[in-house]
Amino acid sequence: MTIHGFYDTIIIGGGPAGITAALYAARQKMNALIVTKAFGGQITRKVTPVENWPGIVQITGTELIHNFQKHLRRHKIDIERDEVSKIKKVKNYFCITTKSKNHFKTYSVIVATGADPRQLEVEGEQHFVGKGVSYCPLCDGPLFYNKDVAVIGGGNSALEAVILLSKYTKSVTILESQDKLAAFRDLQDRAMATKKVKVLTNIKVLKIEGNKTVEKIIFEDKLTKKKKELAIDGIFIEIGNQPATSFLKDLVDFSKKDEIKINPRNCETRTEGLFACGDVTDVFPKQIVVAAGEGTKAAVNAYNYVQTVKNAGA
Amino acid sequence: MTIHGFYDTIIIGGGPAGITAALYAARQKMNALIVTKAFGGQITRKVTPVENWPGIVQITGTELIHNFQKHLRRHKIDIERDEVSKIKKVKNYFCITTKSKNHFKTYSVIVATGADPRQLEVEGEQHFVGKGVSYCPLCDGPLFYNKDVAVIGGGNSALEAVILLSKYTKSVTILESQDKLAAFRDLQDRAMATKKVKVLTNIKVLKIEGNKTVEKIIFEDKLTKKKKELAIDGIFIEIGNQPATSFLKDLVDFSKKDEIKINPRNCETRTEGLFACGDVTDVFPKQIVVAAGEGTKAAVNAYNYVQTVKNAGA
Repeated sequence: MTIHGFYDTIIIGGGPAGITAALYAARQKMNALIVTKAFGGQITRKVTPVENWPGIVQITGTELIHNFQKHLRRHKIDIERDEVSKIKKVKNYFCITTKSKNHFKTYSVIVATGADPRQLEVEGEQHFVGKGVSYCPLCDGPLFYNKDVAVIGGGNSALEAVILLSKYTKSVTILESQDKLAAFRDLQDRAMATKKVKVLTNIKVLKIEGNKTVEKIIFEDKLTKKKKELAIDGIFIEIGNQPATSFLKDLVDFSKKDEIKINPRNCETRTEGLFACGDVTDVFPKQIVVAAGEGTKAAVNAYNYVQTVKNAGA
Repeated sequence: MTIHGFYDTIIIGGGPAGITAALYAARQKMNALIVTKAFGGQITRKVTPVENWPGIVQITGTELIHNFQKHLRRHKIDIERDEVSKIKKVKNYFCITTKSKNHFKTYSVIVATGADPRQLEVEGEQHFVGKGVSYCPLCDGPLFYNKDVAVIGGGNSALEAVILLSKYTKSVTILESQDKLAAFRDLQDRAMATKKVKVLTNIKVLKIEGNKTVEKIIFEDKLTKKKKELAIDGIFIEIGNQPATSFLKDLVDFSKKDEIKINPRNCETRTEGLFACGDVTDVFPKQIVVAAGEGTKAAVNAYNYVQTVKNAGA
């Protein structure tokens, strides 16, 4: 087993939290490595332009991440295009193994792996992925020109999806499990202004049916307990994200939503030297600028931690 | 007494935390007012370009704030160019009075007033302000061309000041009270690379003396207990900031550094409906992107709080 380097910190993930943590690690002259398959995280899958990054009225997610990356590359930092498969704490350092079986040592770890789209987990969902079921309105929206689609979910990303889809489709029906939508009011107003949107609340989706492609959704009205169906050509599932944490099982505690529990003051997890920041954690709200702020906190606190470990070892 | 408006939220302060909170308040369609004498806060007093705002390699503080303001003005939000002198909680809302004796009501308050330079509080300091004693290297640095100056303090802003001052002065002596400098390593390295910088640690400044202008600093070497003096033309005091919180006395708790204590998870203070974010709070580290992230947290949590209050009242 060859060890490819002993770092002050290894940052896992290349979204806004990870890149900002890496920027600050570099500014503090830490010997740092960032491990990520790709840069951008969820931002590059965003369906509408980013309008909430302070100082920029409107920018695509791809452009914003390009700016972040350009900034990062002005600094000295190692980049490994890979995924982490295992982390183990040994004495006062960590051993990290990637999917390509490369090994690294580090005094501290900053987990910023973000989150993947959460699945509905109903019958037919898996079967119809790519045949009418989608988790990416930006990628698949244009395929539903003048068709009827449903969006499952009522949060910000669901409403952003609705606004985008309304540009292509004949109609968009929102199916929400709660009694009202959770999205910011301006998003709701903009969605309603399209005149193509219908909202059904208190819905429990039971099943997705079709022949070769999706044809209908079977659902229960939770108030009347009646089973109903809706003829539909496409279904976009926007019910939040699943934090990407499988490689961390024994080192951190998880919230009910499977987010890494952190000390919100300094981004520490329950394992000393292991920090986490951004959408993979229980931080609220999940916003780009919050993730960047949290990345900064994690990097500065990791720096202080590593100084202490090195002084103790010296 | 005329009440000029009943708001969902009033944001006090126009730096990165306040502007970002205002942006998010507006995006959530809150009826919001921002009260600030000027936009920019400490950023506009920054002595070196901003290099740690993610996505921008280098920008002046003034330009960055200009971008923030431009973004804010795309949204519907009231702006009051004033200072808050008093906040009082009455039932489920707040009454706010400004220095110009204007009155506003609001369901929630977001305090983002930042911090002012902290004073050394030694003999001679007040007397020589503007005659050799300065808290603003950016404003006063050029006055010390080819002179010998001292910087009191060893944190990031002190070292940024040193780097800037070294461009004008003959020499810069850092006087630090601890046994080592606290600034980020890259700042220390860049300061040392100027070859004009001398560092004295374990120093207690006792007195500033001179005739018409500053001529020397009297200080104690804390290790030897010996009293020494240093002939000097200018003194830049960079020992941190004093949170601007005088109008809040009975509503919040304070840290030892006079920062507002917040719940780091949601920016709540001990008074329900009163939120705080950015450098005025005990958040760590004090960085622009952290302040912006915290402003976002405060605004989203204030939104949720106001919904609850309105529903309870309905």
